Amino acid sequence: MYRRNLALAAAALGALAVLTGTAGAQEVTLESVQAETAFVFNTLLFLMGGFLVMFMAAGFAMLEAGLVRKKNVSMQCLKNIGLYSLAGIMYWCVGYSLMYTDVASYIGTFAPYSWPEAGAVNEGDYSVGSDWFFQMVFCATTASIVSGAVAERIKLWPFLIFVAILTGIIYPIAGSWKWGAGFLDQMGFLDFAGSTLVHSVGGWAALTGAIILGARSGKYTPEGQVVPMPGSSIPLATLGTFILWLGWFGFNGGSQLAFGDNANASDVSRIFINTNLAAAGGVIVAMLIMQARYKKVDVTMALNGALAGLVSITAEPLTPGPLMAIIIGGVGGAIVVFTVPLLDKFKIDDVVGAIPVHLVAGIWGTLAVPITNSDGSFVTQAVGIVAYGVFTVIACTIVWFALKMTLGIRASQEEERQGLDKAEIGVEAYPEFA
Amino acid sequence: MYRRNLALAAAALGALAVLTGTAGAQEVTLESVQAETAFVFNTLLFLMGGFLVMFMAAGFAMLEAGLVRKKNVSMQCLKNIGLYSLAGIMYWCVGYSLMYTDVASYIGTFAPYSWPEAGAVNEGDYSVGSDWFFQMVFCATTASIVSGAVAERIKLWPFLIFVAILTGIIYPIAGSWKWGAGFLDQMGFLDFAGSTLVHSVGGWAALTGAIILGARSGKYTPEGQVVPMPGSSIPLATLGTFILWLGWFGFNGGSQLAFGDNANASDVSRIFINTNLAAAGGVIVAMLIMQARYKKVDVTMALNGALAGLVSITAEPLTPGPLMAIIIGGVGGAIVVFTVPLLDKFKIDDVVGAIPVHLVAGIWGTLAVPITNSDGSFVTQAVGIVAYGVFTVIACTIVWFALKMTLGIRASQEEERQGLDKAEIGVEAYPEFA
Amino acid sequence: MYRRNLALAAAALGALAVLTGTAGAQEVTLESVQAETAFVFNTLLFLMGGFLVMFMAAGFAMLEAGLVRKKNVSMQCLKNIGLYSLAGIMYWCVGYSLMYTDVASYIGTFAPYSWPEAGAVNEGDYSVGSDWFFQMVFCATTASIVSGAVAERIKLWPFLIFVAILTGIIYPIAGSWKWGAGFLDQMGFLDFAGSTLVHSVGGWAALTGAIILGARSGKYTPEGQVVPMPGSSIPLATLGTFILWLGWFGFNGGSQLAFGDNANASDVSRIFINTNLAAAGGVIVAMLIMQARYKKVDVTMALNGALAGLVSITAEPLTPGPLMAIIIGGVGGAIVVFTVPLLDKFKIDDVVGAIPVHLVAGIWGTLAVPITNSDGSFVTQAVGIVAYGVFTVIACTIVWFALKMTLGIRASQEEERQGLDKAEIGVEAYPEFA
Repeated sequence: MYRRNLALAAAALGALAVLTGTAGAQEVTLESVQAETAFVFNTLLFLMGGFLVMFMAAGFAMLEAGLVRKKNVSMQCLKNIGLYSLAGIMYWCVGYSLMYTDVASYIGTFAPYSWPEAGAVNEGDYSVGSDWFFQMVFCATTASIVSGAVAERIKLWPFLIFVAILTGIIYPIAGSWKWGAGFLDQMGFLDFAGSTLVHSVGGWAALTGAIILGARSGKYTPEGQVVPMPGSSIPLATLGTFILWLGWFGFNGGSQLAFGDNANASDVSRIFINTNLAAAGGVIVAMLIMQARYKKVDVTMALNGALAGLVSITAEPLTPGPLMAIIIGGVGGAIVVFTVPLLDKFKIDDVVGAIPVHLVAGIWGTLAVPITNSDGSFVTQAVGIVAYGVFTVIACTIVWFALKMTLGIRASQEEERQGLDKAEIGVEAYPEFA
Repeated sequence: MYRRNLALAAAALGALAVLTGTAGAQEVTLESVQAETAFVFNTLLFLMGGFLVMFMAAGFAMLEAGLVRKKNVSMQCLKNIGLYSLAGIMYWCVGYSLMYTDVASYIGTFAPYSWPEAGAVNEGDYSVGSDWFFQMVFCATTASIVSGAVAERIKLWPFLIFVAILTGIIYPIAGSWKWGAGFLDQMGFLDFAGSTLVHSVGGWAALTGAIILGARSGKYTPEGQVVPMPGSSIPLATLGTFILWLGWFGFNGGSQLAFGDNANASDVSRIFINTNLAAAGGVIVAMLIMQARYKKVDVTMALNGALAGLVSITAEPLTPGPLMAIIIGGVGGAIVVFTVPLLDKFKIDDVVGAIPVHLVAGIWGTLAVPITNSDGSFVTQAVGIVAYGVFTVIACTIVWFALKMTLGIRASQEEERQGLDKAEIGVEAYPEFA
Repeated sequence: MYRRNLALAAAALGALAVLTGTAGAQEVTLESVQAETAFVFNTLLFLMGGFLVMFMAAGFAMLEAGLVRKKNVSMQCLKNIGLYSLAGIMYWCVGYSLMYTDVASYIGTFAPYSWPEAGAVNEGDYSVGSDWFFQMVFCATTASIVSGAVAERIKLWPFLIFVAILTGIIYPIAGSWKWGAGFLDQMGFLDFAGSTLVHSVGGWAALTGAIILGARSGKYTPEGQVVPMPGSSIPLATLGTFILWLGWFGFNGGSQLAFGDNANASDVSRIFINTNLAAAGGVIVAMLIMQARYKKVDVTMALNGALAGLVSITAEPLTPGPLMAIIIGGVGGAIVVFTVPLLDKFKIDDVVGAIPVHLVAGIWGTLAVPITNSDGSFVTQAVGIVAYGVFTVIACTIVWFALKMTLGIRASQEEERQGLDKAEIGVEAYPEFA
């Protein structure tokens, strides 16, 4: 690889120049070598964590494609690739600076994100670009949570406009309160990787959407009975769950934000274990309750149990011991089994179970932080949960209603009947499987 | 990311305190910097290898979901997420300590696994938590091997109880003999990443299960003819195979156990190449034999050829050159093509071909070690293979029979006829594809 | 992990011996520690980038399995696992040395690739084995591009023979012109990660194949109308696209070729962001144009828009700023929407849209380099594009015709009608979904 080596050599020389001071920069010392190594490790953590979380977009797409009916599968796929794309653009355009730059207590500044030029040496402990990438995929996750809950009846473009506002404005403002050093951070609110910041914000957005949209036609009979509308492909839903589980190692592990020394690498390891055990606890508890209550183990409950376990441990994946991680995740699994029928009681039609998994388990996980982390306070955790809830519900309600009164958000009865794939996409998901 | 930076800074300060001796610890020296860098690299290898192997759980799920019939797909998905969850819990609960802690020649100790507290600096060359994670996913793999062979007729809960015993006790005891520094290790038995420890142990467990359960109803006619029961989705089986192939870079590469210097990083590279070429050899040889013998190239043989190639190289992915890797994997591919019909001859109904792939190719791979590794001895390799076989067959037979005589392990004829999805799950995999 | 620790300790001692000079090697100095750390980081970049690109083989398999008709899905799966396997073997056998070793201006040497022995310390800035692995998966990608375009009518073995020649000879010779320091490199042609080297070479091979094979029976009526032949599974195609998107972080990020210091790690971060934003731009632009022109948003156009965005940014993912990355990718998305119908006009039957995505967007991306990279020249870029086009078209045409006149390349009308799965594989993809 000759020529490519030259590029490499040039880059190395550049770095050397910086280090040896021929560019007027600092000398190579033991400390500078140590710092640069840590810089690369930290950047690697963000990039690796980032691509794992990016892949969660595929996980959500498969989970939702598997849990909607055949006639809406193409639409669900399109919404998922569309929302992930939009989230990236909006988070560059305004989101990141709103969340982190010149942050006041409640809001940052509107400005497109930029970063050091190619070949430049970054200041700080990691590459700012790697941080942007890592934060962006979190933002996209928030939007992914919404798409499942409002599936099978929301129109494409209004949904995407909602996503643009959620990822560009609502999530970043909310995020700044804690991760942008805003007022909740100053109060001591704790949310390691985003049980509240990401999952319950997405969950509240999903809840308001599901309520304002109304249930799918025929989901609830006038007599109040629930009509099952089983998903089209359990293996795709299973695949999606496993992909999400995989991505969560990046989600939680990367949120350690540092990987450059023994202590941080050891903590990331601990986070991996707790993340895995919480998911496992969620699966097993959901399965046991299903068996005890219904004598059958609905596989979708096991899948959502895994996800609820993951959401539950996300607020604090570092301080619990393994048994506590299993318990925290297990409670998440129980939450799913009990909350899914509850939503149906209120005729809130959450197609994939996003609200139990991301909102309710997210609240649980956030409340559970002080159990293992002595820096946490139940009161402050509750304050944070309520603050996020009030803000997100109000902001999302305004946006949903604005869209409803202008473009309209709901497909027509006829479009819903024939399926959104035919109505808006023109491409059926499984044309040969009539 | 202000506040988060504070956390980072605190962590860095903590590390610094340790290194600068303000915590009474050692000075920063060239050697300490070098050692800490190696520590992080080694830990990274375990974490990255670990998440790749974790994803193999999804690979097995898709492979098996694709190779069972439509009416049992949900069950296969549930079993796979259930077994992965259980394996993690059991390996924390007893497995790891049984395999590695206070190891005598034949068995460790029963104790839940614990690890250093958050923020602590680990001793040794890598984070003990990352090692736990890496070893745990190996343990889970062993259980994944079983689920495919006994598919479409085993009941859910007895299967999961078997998994709990396999992952909590049988695999760890067997594993301790070699990786826990037990008697086979002292004899010089070689098994780099587990052709025998993982794959043939899983394979023996699968074989005993398949025999004790008996074949699926209708698989073999009274006249001894084999009734083909083709899998429900070839693309899912293909996806599963590719995911397993991907995961195997973590499986074999991570088993180098070190990544902190030139020599180890170069060896991991070598392992990646051999792993890939062995799989490629398995595919091409299986395809060529199929074409020569049957004039048609059954795609499932190509998929299993890849897996058999991977299993074959797992016992020694480092010392072979590339040509030898292709040959070792190619023999694995041939094994699949010839062993699959052989099992049918004995009316052993292995739904996905797990026994040829994991057991027979695992034995081959283990026997092949001394061809390229001069530290190996054919006799010792054979002793190890037999020891693992005898122990696993006896232990598994006892467990299977105990389950058979208590809970029963086999679904009723009627349940099997209508499919386990309806009988035990209550959720069909493809409800709209009647 | 006792015994395994011994191996680790031995390895560490070996490294130490080298470093401390007990093996007669160099002293441990600040510079040697820094160099070894960079060596491991660079090797890691190749291995991690490599496994991400390897997984793109699964992405192509799923994309194509989703976009062909049901009766050809097993064949598409088989071709994809077969071609990835063959590419690895051929790239070892001749490809790598033809592309990089003793490179002259136009061609290297024929010799199987070998690398340092296990345990050896590598010279240079990264492990040569990791470089081989990384380059190999690029070679395989080139072949993956072809399989989609010629799907549903090409015979298995002639296709694989074509792949062997493409990956063993054509791609490596073409690649040597730039990455092997050949004449185009000396002229100043720029192609960072292979918009031309990989994607347009694959695209030209696909185009010649599609033309020489002719369209699928019934695709174009005698009156010149296009008969839609919709793909069998949109969710699998979506999954494939997301996997490719994920893999592209390895494809472009790894092509930085170095990760050992602040500047390189920062550049890789930048590449991740640009790669992501270009794909996002491709999706959104393709969706907007579809909506404007057709009032429906064909999901396959959004998927191909993502891929075209990725191909477009591949020639230069480092120098653009984020807005420019979105624009470059967005133009790629537009290209797809306009080129797909154009091909149909010429009755070129490209089943999955590989030619618009990889060839046309690849040309665009290559031409766009000088917009942001001042080292580039539009004339030189055009010369490179033409050189690759002329060579690949001539070489592939010769191979396709040679195969056509000997083995024949096209399945019979009857085989095509019943589907290649029945004709050549003997295994249907979805046997229970009649």
